[in-house]
Amino acid sequence: MSGSKFTAVPGGGVTTAVGFKASGVSAGVKYKGKKDVAVVYSERDASVAGVFTTNTVKAPSVLLNMERVKSGKARAVVVNSGNANTCNGPRGMHDARAMTAETAGLLGIAEESVLVCSTGVIGQPMPMDRVVPGIREAVGALSESGGRDAAEAIMTTDTELKEYAVSFELDGRTLTVGGMAKGSGMIHPNMATLLSFVTTDAAVDPGFLKECLVYAADRSFNMVSIDGDSSTNDTLLALANGMAGGGEIKAGGKGCDIFRDALTEVCVFLARAMARDGEGATKLIEVRVVNAPSEKDARLAARSVASSTLFKAAVFGRDANWGRIICAAGYSGAQFNPEAVDIFLGSVEVARGGQGLPFDEEAAAAVLAGDTVQVLIDLKEGKDEAVAWGCDLTYEYVRINGDYRT
Amino acid sequence: MSGSKFTAVPGGGVTTAVGFKASGVSAGVKYKGKKDVAVVYSERDASVAGVFTTNTVKAPSVLLNMERVKSGKARAVVVNSGNANTCNGPRGMHDARAMTAETAGLLGIAEESVLVCSTGVIGQPMPMDRVVPGIREAVGALSESGGRDAAEAIMTTDTELKEYAVSFELDGRTLTVGGMAKGSGMIHPNMATLLSFVTTDAAVDPGFLKECLVYAADRSFNMVSIDGDSSTNDTLLALANGMAGGGEIKAGGKGCDIFRDALTEVCVFLARAMARDGEGATKLIEVRVVNAPSEKDARLAARSVASSTLFKAAVFGRDANWGRIICAAGYSGAQFNPEAVDIFLGSVEVARGGQGLPFDEEAAAAVLAGDTVQVLIDLKEGKDEAVAWGCDLTYEYVRINGDYRT
Repeated sequence: MSGSKFTAVPGGGVTTAVGFKASGVSAGVKYKGKKDVAVVYSERDASVAGVFTTNTVKAPSVLLNMERVKSGKARAVVVNSGNANTCNGPRGMHDARAMTAETAGLLGIAEESVLVCSTGVIGQPMPMDRVVPGIREAVGALSESGGRDAAEAIMTTDTELKEYAVSFELDGRTLTVGGMAKGSGMIHPNMATLLSFVTTDAAVDPGFLKECLVYAADRSFNMVSIDGDSSTNDTLLALANGMAGGGEIKAGGKGCDIFRDALTEVCVFLARAMARDGEGATKLIEVRVVNAPSEKDARLAARSVASSTLFKAAVFGRDANWGRIICAAGYSGAQFNPEAVDIFLGSVEVARGGQGLPFDEEAAAAVLAGDTVQVLIDLKEGKDEAVAWGCDLTYEYVRINGDYRT
Repeated sequence: MSGSKFTAVPGGGVTTAVGFKASGVSAGVKYKGKKDVAVVYSERDASVAGVFTTNTVKAPSVLLNMERVKSGKARAVVVNSGNANTCNGPRGMHDARAMTAETAGLLGIAEESVLVCSTGVIGQPMPMDRVVPGIREAVGALSESGGRDAAEAIMTTDTELKEYAVSFELDGRTLTVGGMAKGSGMIHPNMATLLSFVTTDAAVDPGFLKECLVYAADRSFNMVSIDGDSSTNDTLLALANGMAGGGEIKAGGKGCDIFRDALTEVCVFLARAMARDGEGATKLIEVRVVNAPSEKDARLAARSVASSTLFKAAVFGRDANWGRIICAAGYSGAQFNPEAVDIFLGSVEVARGGQGLPFDEEAAAAVLAGDTVQVLIDLKEGKDEAVAWGCDLTYEYVRINGDYRT
């Protein structure tokens, strides 16, 4: 994140912005002793916006949230991990509603102001006998330092917490945007993410909040691919409660650009963290396509390379197989002239004008041995660019996903 | 292939049809002692049709073939494995042409009547000093029993030969359609295949041959996915030399349906064999979508499930995780009502009306332990259906592709 115009807040997350509380508790949905129920709560009515899965099969929680965010206002989100509450028939929607009713009752707020997200196995009824006591405990545990517990409670196969927050000045006030995310498998472009929640104490018009969220998702979660699968439950929610004071940020109004950029920076951080923590991953792959004829072409090519299982396996094997890079760009649907393309692995130029170069294999191997493998593809046909993130494909990915449900 | 109206020819392949010769020799392009140069030759001018990769990055050989098949006639195909001759700059096209010129000169036929296919690593110059002597040896070795050697010479990471032939009667004559294929990685829907060659002694109008080839590819190679990557070199060619005698088969004319179906049956056999031999695969996955609102929806859903890395990994792990099936159908773009869907693994019904059923886990595990895992998805919304093939995702896939080039 070099050159950022924002100040990262050390240890920041979903409760860093003023007026947000959160908690995460262990209710026994996932594994004994693992946190699996989280609540995020705003002390005041917040503007809300959401980006949801494009999967035809949508969890009841997604359908409920899609309906509720239309009001533009929300107060709380209840989340569980360990069970997706999807493909459970009418019972699924009943249980999703019951989770929000329970949360609303305990908080003394309207049921319609509570959103609900679930993540985990599909097609198994939600164990409400454990979830309801979990919600009670979580509401009781709400605190301004509860962001970390919440981030932990939404994890499934994640190996690391994903939290981030930045602050910036506007009209002499400090505004904060913070968030958390979970998700390491089943993440693919054109999806929001698995689950991500962003909170801010800025006052933001709900319509503009949605506009910013779509902008941020297109440059962050929608540019991440772990395994090409898109979940039934993927959800990105933003809550803006205005408790830092100041005028409402609207499209074209004061602070609109800086707010949009702060939201995007938080989302990019979380998306990169998800890619790095892809199931079984040992490396983050960052693919930057530059000088593309259009942003669409840049995005298509970047995502295709970051998603290529052949290239991902080559990165795992530290094989500087740039042929797989140009091949994946080629089948992406992006328009470009293959005979113009230059390709770099880190600082090592491996192809120029669509042809292989004799390059230093040791230097390339050193790039591939790194924690983050950067790929630069110069299409030399325009001015647009895009960045996509992925991870290597490893034995561990196969192990995790060959034995997840059981 | 139960209920086929065709007679399989035992040991049949690309030289089973009358008037075709082939050979496969070791020229040292691949590994020492492995066959890597093949020639297929028709004693007479043959009608020709091709289906080629949709990748923006196309091998020079593909571009050359696309041009040459426009004449509708061809006599021979020269093929090498071990080097894709792609991304080699102007030298690539020069070498591709030189391979056809060499073959044509030795056979005493026009250079334009020879097609060329290459498969292997991208971005390394073709070792013409080894390929040219290989072509000489291959032309010298042409024989009516050379189909098997040719099928061997086109293999890369394939572990098994892929050949098939069927015969049928038309107007008292026996007509034969035979073919061979290679390809186990980099195979994906909307591609022809890696490489496949079909020969027939039927007389077929070139335009109708193309029509039949597209029809067959859409129901065979385009319904196979190994890893989602589409190669720069994928090519399916058909040659029809008419040497069995009889009138020319044309669109709407006598024998047109049976010929189209015979060609399709050969292609389906080869496509299934490719899926089963997917890199590192231990199982063939066959996904049948029935009662879809349209064939397009059926195809989209079937291919998406057969391509899902999460489902492929679950099959490897023998995990009856049907949630991944409905999820993959859901993000496929197919239109259907998730609450209507029934899903079977083999004969075990695992979901009905979009909800999980209590099923016999042992029976499901037995299905997943089989050599071929059949998935049936009943969308209950129409009359159309489609079948797609894939394979499980294994540790071995990661090993092979983490260390292919080096």
